[in-house]
Amino acid sequence: MKLTSLKAGRDGALYVVNNALTKMVSAEQVAPTMQSALDNWQTVAPQLQQLHQQLEQGQIDGVAFEQSQCHSPLPRAFQWADGSAYVNHVELVRKARNAEMPESFWTDPLMYQGGSDSFLAPTDDIVMPQDDGFGIDFEAEIAVITDDVPMGVSAEQALSHIKLVMIVNDVSLRGLIPGELAKGFGFFQSKPSSAFSPVCVTPEALGDAWQNGVLHLPLCSKYNGGVFGKPNAGVDMTFNFGQLIAHAARTRPLAAGTIIGSGTVSNKLDGGAGKPVSEGGVGYSCIAEIRMIETIDNGQPSTPFMSFGDTIEIEMFDANGQSIFGQIKQTVVKQA
Amino acid sequence: MKLTSLKAGRDGALYVVNNALTKMVSAEQVAPTMQSALDNWQTVAPQLQQLHQQLEQGQIDGVAFEQSQCHSPLPRAFQWADGSAYVNHVELVRKARNAEMPESFWTDPLMYQGGSDSFLAPTDDIVMPQDDGFGIDFEAEIAVITDDVPMGVSAEQALSHIKLVMIVNDVSLRGLIPGELAKGFGFFQSKPSSAFSPVCVTPEALGDAWQNGVLHLPLCSKYNGGVFGKPNAGVDMTFNFGQLIAHAARTRPLAAGTIIGSGTVSNKLDGGAGKPVSEGGVGYSCIAEIRMIETIDNGQPSTPFMSFGDTIEIEMFDANGQSIFGQIKQTVVKQA
Repeated sequence: MKLTSLKAGRDGALYVVNNALTKMVSAEQVAPTMQSALDNWQTVAPQLQQLHQQLEQGQIDGVAFEQSQCHSPLPRAFQWADGSAYVNHVELVRKARNAEMPESFWTDPLMYQGGSDSFLAPTDDIVMPQDDGFGIDFEAEIAVITDDVPMGVSAEQALSHIKLVMIVNDVSLRGLIPGELAKGFGFFQSKPSSAFSPVCVTPEALGDAWQNGVLHLPLCSKYNGGVFGKPNAGVDMTFNFGQLIAHAARTRPLAAGTIIGSGTVSNKLDGGAGKPVSEGGVGYSCIAEIRMIETIDNGQPSTPFMSFGDTIEIEMFDANGQSIFGQIKQTVVKQA
Repeated sequence: MKLTSLKAGRDGALYVVNNALTKMVSAEQVAPTMQSALDNWQTVAPQLQQLHQQLEQGQIDGVAFEQSQCHSPLPRAFQWADGSAYVNHVELVRKARNAEMPESFWTDPLMYQGGSDSFLAPTDDIVMPQDDGFGIDFEAEIAVITDDVPMGVSAEQALSHIKLVMIVNDVSLRGLIPGELAKGFGFFQSKPSSAFSPVCVTPEALGDAWQNGVLHLPLCSKYNGGVFGKPNAGVDMTFNFGQLIAHAARTRPLAAGTIIGSGTVSNKLDGGAGKPVSEGGVGYSCIAEIRMIETIDNGQPSTPFMSFGDTIEIEMFDANGQSIFGQIKQTVVKQA
């Protein structure tokens, strides 16, 4: 089953989408918003599944699906907790700012509490007061949405609480990160509003690509029109989503509609740091990583961070080339 | 005007409360929940004000106000961002764990993104899987709720976005903090669910005690029945709520219903660290501070953190001894 939230009010209007992302039908009679569906998932999900089946089989005509009408699946959420499951990414970013990475990062997940009150739509501009010095970067990631998760859930039990899967651009301001992390309280200004894919899908809809809380497909990032990264989200994911959820729920329950992120998808190459797409590698899901490789190779980075006018597209395709979640497509724009 | 959310569903049921906290009336016809009121504050607030006036003047009978029926004003929120405006507290806590405090902390606010999906009711138990090693502590703070705040708001403009004021117990697990902060991503497991006061009030309802984004009254914490702290929230607040909101909104807008916290209220004494209530001081709003004083005086702390069965009450009274927000009263209890 695939779901979307059309732009409407603060929480969007819930629609069911067909697998080919060509048609959709309003789910208003079942649940007016994605959050209300998640609040009552056990009773609502079977009715949404039925709508999806009818749409898929042509028993309902539906209307044309147009992703420019879509907001993020949860336009605002009660929780957005982003992990760093691709520890390779953490290691590279730390190297890039000359910070040591403790060994424990390979066994104890990193996770930060993100702002969840005002997500961007997948085609919204990334509006910033300045680009100079901010180090504007994208981060292509996988994210899941849970139902109610009890405190102390095990990593294995946590897998059954994953109700929906989507992709995300976790916009980051690299120029502000070192100063903020030095203060000790984590990210705040360095993590402005994130944007999620137009469509979220149930784990079942991912078929064999979803295994044990890991999504085994390449995540494609196009930067200013060219392929920048296509690392496989199923490779080098040190912690699966069950482990990330269990980490988040160690000392408190998680409410329905909690979004848990994977962190930037990143693949090693022969145990090392990976190669740009132009050199035959799978590339990168953020600019910070290629800058690190450039620093290793040439002593300094040569790829600048994003400036006003730069665009980022993030999308994932199944084995048949079908877009699964629709496309995140954003342009960096100066605040008026 | 004073408002409360009675326990009902996931978002509570909005009621208007009289100033003496003895009577209340349902606001369902105006706005069913606190969040819906904040989403439409400009049109809703005058109608709530009218209900309050009618209740205050006896034109409406209302029903008895009973704070055990209350949830936190926002039982779940889209954002909870907690500052550390009483820099004295930060300095003491850092000293207690042998960490240096940078000079910039006096000019650049500290703020962390808190979990906001599952707040505790003001009389809910603090349920924990263990007390040993967790270093369970309370933190008595002031918090405000905003309407929609644009990105880049000035500290002065931000003051007009403060719609409601309340108090909060920002439960903290001191035993988990050093390890988490060392990882660099800020608090997560060390900040379990917070509890807010039964009632929130408009800045106007605070009269002269509310000046320029600062609340000038003592905040009273009773620990196991004895007064533990009564520092004045108007003293030594280095950043007012306008500055805290502007800090939060530097790189993204804040959505209506955003909660901004002051951090633990803490007063200096003659420029120094303050004294316990038993020695004639104003005491402390968390256990970590008294442990620091004990360490300075005796080489080691003697007051243990909270154990199962310990209770904390947090309340603020106006000049006439009237409770303004009702009482937070919580007991630490072992998870079943």
